[in-house]
Amino acid sequence: MKALVYGGPGEKSWKDVPDPRLAGPRDAIVRVDAVTICGTDLHILGGDVPEVRPGRILGHEAVGTVMSVGAGVGNLAEGDRVLASCISACGVCRFCREGRYGQCLGGGGWILGHTVDGVQAEYARIPFADLSTYRLPASVPDEAAVLLADILPTSYEVGVLNGGVTPGDTVVVVGAGPIGLAAIQTAKLFSPSRIVVVDKAQSRLEAAKLFGADLTLRPEDEPLEAVRAVTDGLGADVVIEAVGTPATFELCATLVRPGGRLANVGVHGSPATLHLEQLWIRDVTITTGLVDTRTTPKLLDMLVAGQFDTAQMVTHRFALGEIEQAYDVFSRPAETGALKVVLSRG
Amino acid sequence: MKALVYGGPGEKSWKDVPDPRLAGPRDAIVRVDAVTICGTDLHILGGDVPEVRPGRILGHEAVGTVMSVGAGVGNLAEGDRVLASCISACGVCRFCREGRYGQCLGGGGWILGHTVDGVQAEYARIPFADLSTYRLPASVPDEAAVLLADILPTSYEVGVLNGGVTPGDTVVVVGAGPIGLAAIQTAKLFSPSRIVVVDKAQSRLEAAKLFGADLTLRPEDEPLEAVRAVTDGLGADVVIEAVGTPATFELCATLVRPGGRLANVGVHGSPATLHLEQLWIRDVTITTGLVDTRTTPKLLDMLVAGQFDTAQMVTHRFALGEIEQAYDVFSRPAETGALKVVLSRG
Repeated sequence: MKALVYGGPGEKSWKDVPDPRLAGPRDAIVRVDAVTICGTDLHILGGDVPEVRPGRILGHEAVGTVMSVGAGVGNLAEGDRVLASCISACGVCRFCREGRYGQCLGGGGWILGHTVDGVQAEYARIPFADLSTYRLPASVPDEAAVLLADILPTSYEVGVLNGGVTPGDTVVVVGAGPIGLAAIQTAKLFSPSRIVVVDKAQSRLEAAKLFGADLTLRPEDEPLEAVRAVTDGLGADVVIEAVGTPATFELCATLVRPGGRLANVGVHGSPATLHLEQLWIRDVTITTGLVDTRTTPKLLDMLVAGQFDTAQMVTHRFALGEIEQAYDVFSRPAETGALKVVLSRG
Repeated sequence: MKALVYGGPGEKSWKDVPDPRLAGPRDAIVRVDAVTICGTDLHILGGDVPEVRPGRILGHEAVGTVMSVGAGVGNLAEGDRVLASCISACGVCRFCREGRYGQCLGGGGWILGHTVDGVQAEYARIPFADLSTYRLPASVPDEAAVLLADILPTSYEVGVLNGGVTPGDTVVVVGAGPIGLAAIQTAKLFSPSRIVVVDKAQSRLEAAKLFGADLTLRPEDEPLEAVRAVTDGLGADVVIEAVGTPATFELCATLVRPGGRLANVGVHGSPATLHLEQLWIRDVTITTGLVDTRTTPKLLDMLVAGQFDTAQMVTHRFALGEIEQAYDVFSRPAETGALKVVLSRG
């Protein structure tokens, strides 16, 4: 089959590789019907995630059709249409038993396109298939479902729930890529009073307005002054970091009010400076996290109920074999206006 | 009267100053019967808290007798024996109404010995006296009560409650000064399985054992390996930073397990490096905070009930006029074995 293979920082290619095979009784083999590219894939290509070794097939967000299952798979059958989630889970270890699947100690967690081969391919092996996939209702199109593989649960769990958004809050989202835009949508589930979005790309700020941002700012618009101006000088109740650079994290730490929360969602490749000489006295909570996908079933219900605008999230469509072109478009969002790009089997 | 006056970094003197007077209707004048010195006072003298200006009377932990009250004080009368807490509170602002008194926007918060004159003096003006003091039962001696002014509520609220200690946890306390020792005692209220304490002074580690530490380590004992060895390689559930340096904070961030919490209590004068390239994926929560003293009434109940070992916390006693000698003893704990030093009117 063909797959998108990582070759080291900056290197990738769509090329022939052996077909995946069942390697254990809890595996499934899935034919990839739709797949997308994540900002995390760009972080990998940027060298920020050194655990990903050359030769790895990338990708952790797909919708597919079950082709075969191991003897230990109880809830899936050949032909099932499933979401292949970014998080796999043994379901047995200490952390899985707490619902903290992202930290699975039994060989799961974020493994697809990370420590095992991923789903930017014609076929993929999905370990722990019962817990790593979700059967999809026919009413949910591939393009919407694929957003449930990572960006909706990640922005919701790691951004909005870790940030503890409550009614009336002022929420700042720094970074209006797909994760930031999904954070706007999922933050609105808790009726904040205003959502302020900071990004350097005007096209992404326009997208943020479409998804419900009340105030959009570029870094040169002095976000600190602008946020204080709408919060009685205090700062935001919740700040969500959705970029993954020291500068954006450090900006977030200045924007949060005393007693407020900073939820980091971004994938970081470098340390940041934490200004404890200012923060020690300010009752600030900072969270980091990998998504657990424990909310995926509820998010799927909400998707079916029409509670999310998924149509405007997908800006570009490609055939699976055009994935290198899709990466190019996705990696230049300021020029291309790309949000999510979806590649389909066709 | 005499008072201990800050003269700028490294400078202080016990000298004649004007007697304090009621400056507003919510003030009380308190005669200081017992007062202590805080690690925070040493941070001030070290230049870590630049808001404290030369000429300021230091001190924020005292027991005293009410001498006079303003017309707006409803719950105190001349002759009452009271705890003067490190936190004053207007009781009216947004944060006070949330019980977040440390962040008071109405002129309270940590003001004594910080932005107004403090209690290392023969007399002190206590703003917002109704909310800044607690009447003391006769059964509680001054030396025990004075520990309620700061170290017990700070270690409890900012360390143990922010850290979310729960039964069975492995708790690491970095720094075995008075705050760290109080954190051990208040953490034990939640029945952790083990408390590990890290400090560079052997005398403080011995004190930590007295208060209930199960394992004590010096920095050269490779705390990361030692903590992993007792936690299935995972790290501590809760880590409490009770020093206030970049090195100790950064150590804490390595000791916390995936999904764990780091509660910073230390007063910091410099930024620290936050290794987001490691932490972003680990579901770590970091909290900072100034005490609110919302738990002080409950802590007083527990003190009366004998739930805390306060006797071993006070190692040195002085007359009030010997305060410069007391600072000298308190600032060299490795040599003097000092934990809390109490100065009394005599």
